[in-house]
Amino acid sequence: MPLLPLPPDVDEFLRRPNPAVIASLRGDGSPHSVVTWYAWDGEHILLSMDESRLRLRFMREDPRVSLTVLDDDGWHRHVSLLGNITNLDEDEGLNDIDRLALHYTGQIFRTRDRRRFSARMAIATWYAWDGSQPWTAGA
Amino acid sequence: MPLLPLPPDVDEFLRRPNPAVIASLRGDGSPHSVVTWYAWDGEHILLSMDESRLRLRFMREDPRVSLTVLDDDGWHRHVSLLGNITNLDEDEGLNDIDRLALHYTGQIFRTRDRRRFSARMAIATWYAWDGSQPWTAGA
Repeated sequence: MPLLPLPPDVDEFLRRPNPAVIASLRGDGSPHSVVTWYAWDGEHILLSMDESRLRLRFMREDPRVSLTVLDDDGWHRHVSLLGNITNLDEDEGLNDIDRLALHYTGQIFRTRDRRRFSARMAIATWYAWDGSQPWTAGA
Repeated sequence: MPLLPLPPDVDEFLRRPNPAVIASLRGDGSPHSVVTWYAWDGEHILLSMDESRLRLRFMREDPRVSLTVLDDDGWHRHVSLLGNITNLDEDEGLNDIDRLALHYTGQIFRTRDRRRFSARMAIATWYAWDGSQPWTAGA
């Protein structure tokens, strides 16, 4: 269970527009998982949610989350980050979702008429895998 | 929150060798997520774990899990299955991991000298997405 800071190659991997899955806790404590965009700035993970998303309520009630980031090809390398949502605020100017949309699609976010919320996740611990082995390069 | 049985197109999607992430609960109730192979036979989700995997203990202590299945290209369609581990048994002949390895790689599993355990997950509820919209075709 390596500690922060992240090794340079894991840090660089997380800065790419990778597919990712966020797991949060439902009201009864059971896990809930869904595909998400994310961005890593070296300090926090940024997530964005439409106002209607169930996990917005889940994160308000229990900030503990886990984010698994996959490689573009889906398999070889993947990183799981365990931590807490430390900030959950309305994205009033849609700046955060635009940042994510530009990162993933090269264009600003298309839907402009709905409220969105931004979550910032602090990493408590992490695991990195390369195939079925720990991804130890740099760790 | 659609009920079982799964619509034919979701069922067919789940039968492919897709990338997936399994979320389980750590001893303190926080979520843990990691990339996994899975197989869907129309009734249960099959998962396989090396004897050393932390989530084997997590699932024994709390059977509640969530599995998010991504499309091969990572994005367009994804399905999240929420449910419970109903069986957790040693894969003594490595039959289950061979079934998974053949499904994903076309070859039997390479590592033959370690104990593995098979988990079967029953689906309690599920969500399917096509891009940022619910994937309603057939639902």
